[in-house]
Amino acid sequence: MHTTAHIITIGDEILYGQITDTNAQWISQELDAIGVKATQRLTIGDVREEILATLKYSEDRADIVLITGGLGPTEDDLTKPCLAEYFGVDTKLNEEALAHLTALFKRFKFELTPINKLQAHLPTNCQMLPNEIGTAPGMWFFENKTVFISMPGVPFEMKGLMKNVIVPKLKKQFELPIIYHKVVRTIGIGESWLADKIKPWSDALPSSMSLAYLPSLREVKLRLTTSGENLTTLQKAVDQQIDKLKEYVGKFIYGYNSDTIQSVVGKLLTSKNETISTAESCTGGHLAHLITSIPGSSGYYKGSVISYTEKIKQELLGVKAQTLAEYGAVSEQTAIEMAEGVRAKFGTTYAIATTGIAGPGGGTKEIPVGTVWIALATPTGTQAKLLSLAKDRMLNIEASSKSALAFAWQNFVQNS
Amino acid sequence: MHTTAHIITIGDEILYGQITDTNAQWISQELDAIGVKATQRLTIGDVREEILATLKYSEDRADIVLITGGLGPTEDDLTKPCLAEYFGVDTKLNEEALAHLTALFKRFKFELTPINKLQAHLPTNCQMLPNEIGTAPGMWFFENKTVFISMPGVPFEMKGLMKNVIVPKLKKQFELPIIYHKVVRTIGIGESWLADKIKPWSDALPSSMSLAYLPSLREVKLRLTTSGENLTTLQKAVDQQIDKLKEYVGKFIYGYNSDTIQSVVGKLLTSKNETISTAESCTGGHLAHLITSIPGSSGYYKGSVISYTEKIKQELLGVKAQTLAEYGAVSEQTAIEMAEGVRAKFGTTYAIATTGIAGPGGGTKEIPVGTVWIALATPTGTQAKLLSLAKDRMLNIEASSKSALAFAWQNFVQNS
Repeated sequence: MHTTAHIITIGDEILYGQITDTNAQWISQELDAIGVKATQRLTIGDVREEILATLKYSEDRADIVLITGGLGPTEDDLTKPCLAEYFGVDTKLNEEALAHLTALFKRFKFELTPINKLQAHLPTNCQMLPNEIGTAPGMWFFENKTVFISMPGVPFEMKGLMKNVIVPKLKKQFELPIIYHKVVRTIGIGESWLADKIKPWSDALPSSMSLAYLPSLREVKLRLTTSGENLTTLQKAVDQQIDKLKEYVGKFIYGYNSDTIQSVVGKLLTSKNETISTAESCTGGHLAHLITSIPGSSGYYKGSVISYTEKIKQELLGVKAQTLAEYGAVSEQTAIEMAEGVRAKFGTTYAIATTGIAGPGGGTKEIPVGTVWIALATPTGTQAKLLSLAKDRMLNIEASSKSALAFAWQNFVQNS
Repeated sequence: MHTTAHIITIGDEILYGQITDTNAQWISQELDAIGVKATQRLTIGDVREEILATLKYSEDRADIVLITGGLGPTEDDLTKPCLAEYFGVDTKLNEEALAHLTALFKRFKFELTPINKLQAHLPTNCQMLPNEIGTAPGMWFFENKTVFISMPGVPFEMKGLMKNVIVPKLKKQFELPIIYHKVVRTIGIGESWLADKIKPWSDALPSSMSLAYLPSLREVKLRLTTSGENLTTLQKAVDQQIDKLKEYVGKFIYGYNSDTIQSVVGKLLTSKNETISTAESCTGGHLAHLITSIPGSSGYYKGSVISYTEKIKQELLGVKAQTLAEYGAVSEQTAIEMAEGVRAKFGTTYAIATTGIAGPGGGTKEIPVGTVWIALATPTGTQAKLLSLAKDRMLNIEASSKSALAFAWQNFVQNS
């Protein structure tokens, strides 16, 4: 039987979409890592009735209820009074909390105002959890078999409390299994085609292992999840299944877990001590941005020429005027000359080029919006590929950049 | 009485924190904009019991239940069968959905697999909502006084459905108050300084008007919200307040609503029939990406040289070897020569250059990570500015690009 948790986020500003709730995701990851199964996340406003109803709802459904937000000193912060009301207790000045608060203010050389002092008033049935970097202490309640934990909404204060105080306490109080995930990253095949190809494999997965499809732009991630007592055993079991998976779709698998196509391309170039440059038209710098988002990319990436005019294509990339006149800027020939031009100019092992119609304007009957040519120049020749994408400018830019990196990756793998 | 909504996100990958749920926040904002009050957000896993229980929970508490996720063609996607079970109906092949799917696959030149075809099977009591860019149709249920809406989890598919189909249908079905928001976009001033400066103005706001601070990277948005019967009256009242606001912080206001610093810079260049180019080192293409993300940017943007090596800085941008030797690549002098070099080479009215240490590596005692020089070359001279940013590579890249655009915008405004 899993130890289950609900995560309750309290705050109008999150509910109305004015700020992003990054806490709930981070907490989910921390719980997942210690084998606590988050079964539900709830976000509610600073409304007494909502808070009380949600506490009851979660108490009935989870072993652990983690609450963030609504602990500020101002009147619109209702979490503390609502918790006291929910448990039918008063709030009193907590000497331990006051001592902690006084020390904190001394450290920051601030004067302790009456309104700050209010933050040391806690429900009488809670255990104070020291917040080393903020004025709102955390609270730990253990009533009717459920643990309630209240934390401030400020991310770095919440994270400090979770890491230093709450996770250790949870590990002590609950007997937790080990949960192991591994994400297999594929590119160049759609979700339904992938599902078709690997059906014999996924049907034969042991019942102890669950599979999830996580599609995103131009790629599909497969997540394998299993749990038990021994991490090494779990890892081995998952890796065995992944070896079998490779027999079906190995050529589409570019990486695992937090790998990205740009990080994998970077690793391959680094390992072979090779370099790359780019020439971008329709991707307008996004391809270079993906490459340079990787720390250390300056070790293998030399730069790019972004040519938004035919003049620049000719002068900086050496595309022939005749090529542009005969085939147009969006053509296989132009893409190839761009890639070869930038490769020569920057003196890199490889070069990637993109040229196309990102949209919304600029399309014709012959060359509609979403038509993109990508080319890869290598020491042994240049290849190009045509993409037929959608109508949305940003999606076309992102999809073209990712496809160009995938095109390079496939070439590197085939020739290594 | 408000029309209320619950937003249910279905998916293990979100519950376990493997991907961030950006959908719920976006949906909250859309609902807020049309006067629907989101009262709760729930995130649950791909678990039949959880889905059924949550549908009931939300039906009892909201007029509208918006559901995202779990609509993929694979077996771990349970939303559709659970909705059918919840309403006690079967799923059948929906001819309309099949026709739509067939047309979509024809457009993308893909073959329709049996698994894809399954996506056209819908609960018999739902109305199909056409998904223009994906294979999973949306579904609209209206049972027992509550509207249930099921959407795919892929953000751009969900957004298309919301904007084109769902929001219009909601406006038709519910009597919604007219809510009028206007967002004032400021750049170059922090939230607390802004709040200080405008306190007399914000204290004097009429009670019918609410103000929200929406800080994001390098900018702070101020959102004014008011509601009533007559849109023109509301707009006038808000614009009057904004005129007063300008007396306090006018020089920091670069735009309104969906404006971005890159779109505003683009409008200014277009109106003056002027052009711009860029030379990027530490921003690695992100600056060009921001500029080219604007439709029609090819009208004023000619391109960029991304120089990740000193050699390229010299050969393509004409930075002097002596400058690099004397001051280094991350210096005011180098930034200025980069901007002037690319301006001359691309023959543009203006040019922006960036050079700095994005990190995590490459920092020194004298030039720590986060040190960035930006320069703007104009027909009347070149100015540079030093930024001292944080330790995070991506944040430094994004902040530098935005600051460079803000630097150009300030110059354009002062000299127009």
